[in-house]
Amino acid sequence: MRVPYDQLKAEFERVLMSLGISFDIAQKCATVFADNSRDGVQSHGLNRFPVFVQYIKEGLVNPHAMPTLTGSLGALEQWDGNLGPGMLNAGFCMERALLLAANNGIGCIALKNTNHWMRGGTYGLQAAEAGYIGLCFTNTTANMPPWGGTEPRLGNNPLVIAIPKAGGHVVLDMAMSQFSFGKLGQYQNDQKPLPVAGGYDHDGNLTTDATAIKQSRRALPIGFWKGSGLSIVLDLLATVLSGGNSTASISQSGKKETGVSQVFIAIKTDAEKNAELINEIITYTKSGETIEGQEILYPGENMLRTRKQNLTQGVWVDNEAWDKLLSL
Amino acid sequence: MRVPYDQLKAEFERVLMSLGISFDIAQKCATVFADNSRDGVQSHGLNRFPVFVQYIKEGLVNPHAMPTLTGSLGALEQWDGNLGPGMLNAGFCMERALLLAANNGIGCIALKNTNHWMRGGTYGLQAAEAGYIGLCFTNTTANMPPWGGTEPRLGNNPLVIAIPKAGGHVVLDMAMSQFSFGKLGQYQNDQKPLPVAGGYDHDGNLTTDATAIKQSRRALPIGFWKGSGLSIVLDLLATVLSGGNSTASISQSGKKETGVSQVFIAIKTDAEKNAELINEIITYTKSGETIEGQEILYPGENMLRTRKQNLTQGVWVDNEAWDKLLSL
Repeated sequence: MRVPYDQLKAEFERVLMSLGISFDIAQKCATVFADNSRDGVQSHGLNRFPVFVQYIKEGLVNPHAMPTLTGSLGALEQWDGNLGPGMLNAGFCMERALLLAANNGIGCIALKNTNHWMRGGTYGLQAAEAGYIGLCFTNTTANMPPWGGTEPRLGNNPLVIAIPKAGGHVVLDMAMSQFSFGKLGQYQNDQKPLPVAGGYDHDGNLTTDATAIKQSRRALPIGFWKGSGLSIVLDLLATVLSGGNSTASISQSGKKETGVSQVFIAIKTDAEKNAELINEIITYTKSGETIEGQEILYPGENMLRTRKQNLTQGVWVDNEAWDKLLSL
Repeated sequence: MRVPYDQLKAEFERVLMSLGISFDIAQKCATVFADNSRDGVQSHGLNRFPVFVQYIKEGLVNPHAMPTLTGSLGALEQWDGNLGPGMLNAGFCMERALLLAANNGIGCIALKNTNHWMRGGTYGLQAAEAGYIGLCFTNTTANMPPWGGTEPRLGNNPLVIAIPKAGGHVVLDMAMSQFSFGKLGQYQNDQKPLPVAGGYDHDGNLTTDATAIKQSRRALPIGFWKGSGLSIVLDLLATVLSGGNSTASISQSGKKETGVSQVFIAIKTDAEKNAELINEIITYTKSGETIEGQEILYPGENMLRTRKQNLTQGVWVDNEAWDKLLSL
């Protein structure tokens, strides 16, 4: 079914305020969840909201916590998220990175003790909306084996890169696993094979069977050994720069995923001056022959289409998830 | 066969000086080529050297050119490589990024009009040797179709991330294609299938046949649509930040690959203070069960083994490539 954006957001606000959260904070959190559903990222919008509420109830997310500065050197700062809402901490840190970039050309914030930021693209878009290049990444609990191994020891550590562009920003938002667990679940529910191999089955063979992958716990890193390596270095960067928890310590804490580490970088750029270069790149990329029935898109292009449709026709929501929200 | 490191380097120097290049510049270039072979990256060491010489002879690389500053804002600078040797321009720019990072915590250099930097890992190692985190990437000529397309429109745009670590730095050096053209050629020569699918055959089926991939010109991006998206954003970043040539303009120039754009970022860190965190991450990553006959390595670990062997026993070189060097 479809629900007007404002109604969806108001429901999120209602639930959060019922937990004793101030209107200001409830509104900020609700906006992120509503925007994520609006942009077609259900897995980190409506569908994830009950988990966020549960985390607050269990005391894993402190909705009243604010980030505090722990270190600073010119255009590089360290902040402690004090286990506050991940979306608010992340939004705050990208804002700080933008301020540092305004003054220094580039700004870098490392954040520790924060919580799941939901959709990483949110903070890339935030930078692009302000006219800056945005780059950010997070570590996660272990959910993928390293190359050569069979047990989860790496996070899928999403990486986000955004470039401001008139008519729709370029926003890449990609986890290091070929498919997210949300996507695997979706293919399971639809009883469809994955479009490409997404992991290994119990016998160590590459498979497009989402159920087999979830059972073996052997999700595939993008590019095999390459995504495995990129996951390791992103965890190293986030942990070392923030002095926070690594995928190792998050996974071994015995708790649900909390207290993760993140990095936010903003770089000054002149979107107007660069419009021609950006257009040249996108036009050339799209200029080749396409596979029948497919098209060539820049990262973020399809999201914009979904957003437009959801704003015109109402945000598409899963019936069951919507009913659950109303019942909270 | 194996050749002592010093002999290999001296041969590179001899050839370069025979082209009228000063000892200082010849020595710097020779060191990069010799180091690359020493670290097992033949494709950008000895095997690539004749191409570099040819580029100088054709005037595509100006061995006497020095980079010039074109723009500056705090910790962000733009430089013009003036089509000088790519390795010298890249080394200069990472050095500049390190200086900016020393003063500002982070430094970012965008470089235009430069040439192939050979092995990107060289500049990551440079930062790590100085005790800094290094991150750099380059665009290239189009050599890979975008997701949904069948004709090369993207570069494989290598990305390098290095983290200083006692006992061997962590250095990730990865192109956006699953296999480099050097690697495809190697499997062709050995008449062996690739270990995983590396592209599409003429009929659009994924294949491990290197010859079929070279014929179709459809190399596979890492992670399918994900590596395609990452390649686009890296090209956008390098082009927009430097104001230089994009993969589009490099490919459409009608010339061999020259005048590429690159970005170098250095970040201050305290390797000693972070030793425990780094050790925790690597130990945990390696702690899981392994696939029979495989081991779990951190990026850069295997390179270090190769380096030690090549320094002890002499640098392994291809007989034919060595004879060619001697004849230059």
